[in-house]
Amino acid sequence: MSGVERYGHGGDRWTAGEMFARSADTFIDFSANINPLGPPDAVMRVLREALEDKGAPVLTRYPDPRARNLKRALAKRYGLSEECLMIGNGGAELIDLVNAAVRPSRVGVMTPSFAEYEASARKRGQETVYLPTEEREGFQPEPEALFKWVRTVDLAYLGHPNNPTGLTIPYRQLLAVAEEAAIAGTVLVIDEAFLDFVPDGQAHSLLSRLMDFPTTVLLRSMTKFYALPGLRLGWGVASPDWIRRIEAHQVSWSINGLAQLAGEAALTDQFFEKATHRWLSVERDFLMDGLQKLSGVRPIPGEVNYFLLKLDSSVLEGSAGVSRRLQKALGERGILIRDCSTYPGLDDTYVRVAVRSRKENALLLQKLEEVLEKGEVF
Amino acid sequence: MSGVERYGHGGDRWTAGEMFARSADTFIDFSANINPLGPPDAVMRVLREALEDKGAPVLTRYPDPRARNLKRALAKRYGLSEECLMIGNGGAELIDLVNAAVRPSRVGVMTPSFAEYEASARKRGQETVYLPTEEREGFQPEPEALFKWVRTVDLAYLGHPNNPTGLTIPYRQLLAVAEEAAIAGTVLVIDEAFLDFVPDGQAHSLLSRLMDFPTTVLLRSMTKFYALPGLRLGWGVASPDWIRRIEAHQVSWSINGLAQLAGEAALTDQFFEKATHRWLSVERDFLMDGLQKLSGVRPIPGEVNYFLLKLDSSVLEGSAGVSRRLQKALGERGILIRDCSTYPGLDDTYVRVAVRSRKENALLLQKLEEVLEKGEVF
Repeated sequence: MSGVERYGHGGDRWTAGEMFARSADTFIDFSANINPLGPPDAVMRVLREALEDKGAPVLTRYPDPRARNLKRALAKRYGLSEECLMIGNGGAELIDLVNAAVRPSRVGVMTPSFAEYEASARKRGQETVYLPTEEREGFQPEPEALFKWVRTVDLAYLGHPNNPTGLTIPYRQLLAVAEEAAIAGTVLVIDEAFLDFVPDGQAHSLLSRLMDFPTTVLLRSMTKFYALPGLRLGWGVASPDWIRRIEAHQVSWSINGLAQLAGEAALTDQFFEKATHRWLSVERDFLMDGLQKLSGVRPIPGEVNYFLLKLDSSVLEGSAGVSRRLQKALGERGILIRDCSTYPGLDDTYVRVAVRSRKENALLLQKLEEVLEKGEVF
Repeated sequence: MSGVERYGHGGDRWTAGEMFARSADTFIDFSANINPLGPPDAVMRVLREALEDKGAPVLTRYPDPRARNLKRALAKRYGLSEECLMIGNGGAELIDLVNAAVRPSRVGVMTPSFAEYEASARKRGQETVYLPTEEREGFQPEPEALFKWVRTVDLAYLGHPNNPTGLTIPYRQLLAVAEEAAIAGTVLVIDEAFLDFVPDGQAHSLLSRLMDFPTTVLLRSMTKFYALPGLRLGWGVASPDWIRRIEAHQVSWSINGLAQLAGEAALTDQFFEKATHRWLSVERDFLMDGLQKLSGVRPIPGEVNYFLLKLDSSVLEGSAGVSRRLQKALGERGILIRDCSTYPGLDDTYVRVAVRSRKENALLLQKLEEVLEKGEVF
């Protein structure tokens, strides 16, 4: 791969800097879906204090290999037993550890979805079985196909909400597929990395009913909602038996000490959660309205802090690589967006943008309009 | 396992706290081999500044997936090509990634040595082939046995200096075994995690000659010498081909942004290196002298910042589990040491202690004397 996403993901301002001949620092990054309100004040306070602490023990001591304090805080917050919890060096590590523990022959991946599911299978030489979804069906899998797919594979990943579409799976469907997975003995990973952004997201999760579904694993992330991707922090929920089997594959001290502290602190900051939902409800609408007014792009109405954009095919005739060219035109203007042509199941008529602050969203709209009107792309 | 090392290693003050009914914070930790002079001032400055930086981009941005700046700094410092370098979430991750890339059937582990080599094989169901060493032969492998072992396995790990003995492998032997590995097609990992502590350590490394040995991989750590175990940071050197194959197994964004910054800063602080070698030459002698004067323990004269201690068998008759009991007696006094009975190749007559500050070393000697004279252990 040669694009900005050559290492698999958005948010790579270093590669973008090389490609668009700008300093990596100067981009406004709409290509990674990070809460612009974060990190929470409680997190910043705890981290700064830890570095001021005499001798900086958070650095000079090995991190707790079991992340006991963080597990305790999560267990309390979500009403879970600590035995049902695992912590990861980012959600990406947990996605990979599940694969290591399950040792599947066939891995089920819905398309489009987060690239790490397939990457984790490919590097082990496992077969990937796609479950395609179509925009005209709202990027929802056809129920019959979904159930058949779950029965066919040993390990299946579903994004809920899915990335890059921002769409959740209807709760009934989620229950049905988890039940089917349990019957078939398929391990089902429901990746809820972005669920915190969905208003009343907990109600959409199987979290409280997980003990009914012994082969289902839920993954959560603290890097998006709490804006800590630089520090790495994810967690997961499953049966104690699966947690033991998955953790057995984890490298010692995988979760650094500052991430453990930050995670604990983030859970205490309820004001931050409210503020985030207030911001998102206003700015999603603002950005959505603005995008809908632009000619040449059409936003998919996702439920979280990013939008998949369809680039209008009527203006595209004969012009391949349009997503890459739009990314380049904006990149040269200091705006980084995600080219979605690298997602299996999408093509070069899709890009993804995150919701950011009012000022930044307005700038994105302005630059998009400028680029589209100049005809630089289409 | 039920001891303080139940999660495989020393430095676990959380488990020790549970076992010895003390707060985890109150131990003086001789069970982890961390430079008490660190972290370097340059590291602390960079980390604090990064957290004060407006919006804390080091947290809110994804870390560079290729750790480009840190690789550049290491390449410059060690006169290497960036293509020959890989960075890990601690050395432990790199130990595991090499295994993932090599896919060995048989993994060679010298005994005694660092537990992660075998852990990485065991979790994948691979056969471990031990290369035993004996105290009476200075914990050096017999050359014939060493070469045969390298030919027998697909992947072999050697600690240089070895942990827990603190002993290096003679340079000629190192050259010979790397050559043998190349001929046999065995991947040889030379783990130099503690080499920075050896005076003129670079002269003992194959680093500058690695291109002559295409199946040899060198591992280094920045967590011991620079006292950053809480942050996690290791690096490795190999042929560009092996680097690509190993990195292909690494999870995205494995190395957090603060660790990348800290690593760069650490390399600039040459005063810290000199100060460390000054401290170590004085305190090693002080601690060694004191230990030699105690009856009941005998230090193995290792070359780094820790000593393996042999508990005198003449006083031990009929008293099993002596290392564990010594650890407990000291643990209850707030001093944490490493029980080495969990190392294959050692038994309950070995413990390991790190070299720390004068005040702490003196306290260790005093408490050891107290415990030994009270007859609490033997």
